[in-house]
Amino acid sequence: MTARLLTNIGRFFTPRDRSIRSVEDAAIAWDGDTIDWAGPASELPAGLADRDTIDCEGRAVVPGFVDSHTHLVFGGDRSAEFARRLGGESYESLADGGGGIQATVAATRAAPTEELARAALARVSRMATAGTTTVEIKTGYGLDVEHEAKMLDVIDAVDADAPVDIVPTLLAAHAFPRGVDRVEYVRFLVDELVPALADRVAFCDVFCDPAAFSVEESARVLEVAAKKDLGLRVHADQLSHGGGAALAASLGAASADHLDHAAEADLDALRRSGTVAVLVPGASLSSRLPFVDAAAVWQTGVEVAIATDCNPGTSYLETMPFVIALAVLEMGMSPDQALWAATRGGARSLRLDDRGAIEVGARADLVVLEGDHHVDLSYRPDGNHVRHVIAGGVPLPG
Amino acid sequence: MTARLLTNIGRFFTPRDRSIRSVEDAAIAWDGDTIDWAGPASELPAGLADRDTIDCEGRAVVPGFVDSHTHLVFGGDRSAEFARRLGGESYESLADGGGGIQATVAATRAAPTEELARAALARVSRMATAGTTTVEIKTGYGLDVEHEAKMLDVIDAVDADAPVDIVPTLLAAHAFPRGVDRVEYVRFLVDELVPALADRVAFCDVFCDPAAFSVEESARVLEVAAKKDLGLRVHADQLSHGGGAALAASLGAASADHLDHAAEADLDALRRSGTVAVLVPGASLSSRLPFVDAAAVWQTGVEVAIATDCNPGTSYLETMPFVIALAVLEMGMSPDQALWAATRGGARSLRLDDRGAIEVGARADLVVLEGDHHVDLSYRPDGNHVRHVIAGGVPLPG
Repeated sequence: MTARLLTNIGRFFTPRDRSIRSVEDAAIAWDGDTIDWAGPASELPAGLADRDTIDCEGRAVVPGFVDSHTHLVFGGDRSAEFARRLGGESYESLADGGGGIQATVAATRAAPTEELARAALARVSRMATAGTTTVEIKTGYGLDVEHEAKMLDVIDAVDADAPVDIVPTLLAAHAFPRGVDRVEYVRFLVDELVPALADRVAFCDVFCDPAAFSVEESARVLEVAAKKDLGLRVHADQLSHGGGAALAASLGAASADHLDHAAEADLDALRRSGTVAVLVPGASLSSRLPFVDAAAVWQTGVEVAIATDCNPGTSYLETMPFVIALAVLEMGMSPDQALWAATRGGARSLRLDDRGAIEVGARADLVVLEGDHHVDLSYRPDGNHVRHVIAGGVPLPG
Repeated sequence: MTARLLTNIGRFFTPRDRSIRSVEDAAIAWDGDTIDWAGPASELPAGLADRDTIDCEGRAVVPGFVDSHTHLVFGGDRSAEFARRLGGESYESLADGGGGIQATVAATRAAPTEELARAALARVSRMATAGTTTVEIKTGYGLDVEHEAKMLDVIDAVDADAPVDIVPTLLAAHAFPRGVDRVEYVRFLVDELVPALADRVAFCDVFCDPAAFSVEESARVLEVAAKKDLGLRVHADQLSHGGGAALAASLGAASADHLDHAAEADLDALRRSGTVAVLVPGASLSSRLPFVDAAAVWQTGVEVAIATDCNPGTSYLETMPFVIALAVLEMGMSPDQALWAATRGGARSLRLDDRGAIEVGARADLVVLEGDHHVDLSYRPDGNHVRHVIAGGVPLPG
């Protein structure tokens, strides 16, 4: 028997427009994977009351979290590199010594598919336990057709086994593979790799930065992806003001991510193009860099998402409650804004209009918190705040 | 049967002098609550090998964490106040409206002893699960003999039931109770409260700050505590450069805590007096204030501890791995320094020479990590890194 009714909810919190609405003494019902009733318990239709039930005992409920930016399929271990970076070594020097993204490319290429899938599934399972019910996963550690396809095999395997919904993104334009001419690699992406793999993914992403793909190179890759009907994402203005956000806006991308060095005009362009700003505080934290002022970004009117950026080099985070705490305590967001960005914002950045809110017709992705208010997530940043997770209508065990 | 031997340790890490020493392929043995052997497994005496054993399967082991600054006995809930503070209300305005420490004083006075003990024990249990094996707990929400004694009853109850070691500190000079004349309260502390309760605690602490107790008032309280043979702790130079650290040094206090506004001369004085600098990054994080530059503090030669400062107003943290991650990622410490500060540093600040290191004669307080290196604690700041905890020789369940 599968529970299909949450009763005795102290309060549920759900994004509406750009704010958070709360409903007290509430109930939420679903049929299959879709919410079919949500509101004050006193108004619950009699016909729904006999469904299998989880009694929330006054706890708060929020929508399942949407983690819209991860690189969680990878091989190898870069903790030693992390320690050396803390000791003052530059990323460039570590990369020259075989570290950085290239170290993960080598380890991911070398690892058997099953081993990668096992490790990725473990990460996704921990994410789900912490309330994430939709996870975007990027390729980008293969950098050729064979190994990017292997990463997609891993993502498919995770999708088949994980209790949550997976959204695959092609990020073959993550770095230039060693020993391959830069012009030749862009030609190869445009003529061969993107066309070959486009039907296996929902999005195409490019690391647009003077240290990676130029605006012109990025545009060529993204334009061929758009022709293949993929949604577009851009790693934009992370290391410097390189023009990535402006490119994302000009192409009507679904998201522009990082944005550490984006200017106000860039944010304005993103707002006008309906491109979501995906902010990833873990990358700032792990690199000891200043955090993006997310309150100021929000203020411009652009839609904001927050995500883990789970990756082995610069942001080895797995849990959205921790990202929410960072967004509030380090990026200046209010708890309501951070909740919006972790749910509706993430869903909007993935162009998924069926989730990220608690409303009739939405996916039954729900998190029952331990306490009676979502502010606990930043009030107690090292706490375990998740009591139950319902993903696509199915309560996760534990 | 109680395990008394850890085998197959990939590496154990232990403070020695001011650095961290590591021993590979190691074993650690204990008898009762005391380590009686630690070193390379190849040298393990034959007579010890048949003890009940936990196989660490190559994992890393570190000393149990020492949380040397907490206010974890309290009643009430200040999450709403936290949310208002995030919204821009000043602490002073919230305090004037009945919030701040006084809100917790009122709620703690009103709560039954058993209720306070149940909540405090739950906090300590979560701390222990995360690897803390020694916890200092302060009074300071009673502010009269009856209610400070009630807090000590709670601390005693926690000590009796918790699996870890508890160190009680009298902090009746935490705030001035409402409706009591300031001169009269200091006289009362000196003549009545401290003498009445001194034999129930190990330390006396004072919140020395222009916004709380002046240097002169603090000195009077601490001097009577010293005469009662209590060790001294001082909340020093937190909100402004108020002279607390200099006072702590001049009185040979065991610790000076916070130190956000301490000057280099203050740190130098602490070093000369053998006073430990207890840094509490959670208070900076939760108040969105700049972090102390712990690397610079360490550089002065003063001994450094890090602690949760667990309290309902300004730092509702419970886990030392999270504090270690903040120390590394936000306060500039190296992973080795942070581990030192979370173990040996904490023990030194509590004047406990029998713990905070893995060596023969030390308490068998041990943490088996999930991974093979303690750098994981800051590399994956939202991870759960603790596999087993042994407190005073007893493996905790779970």
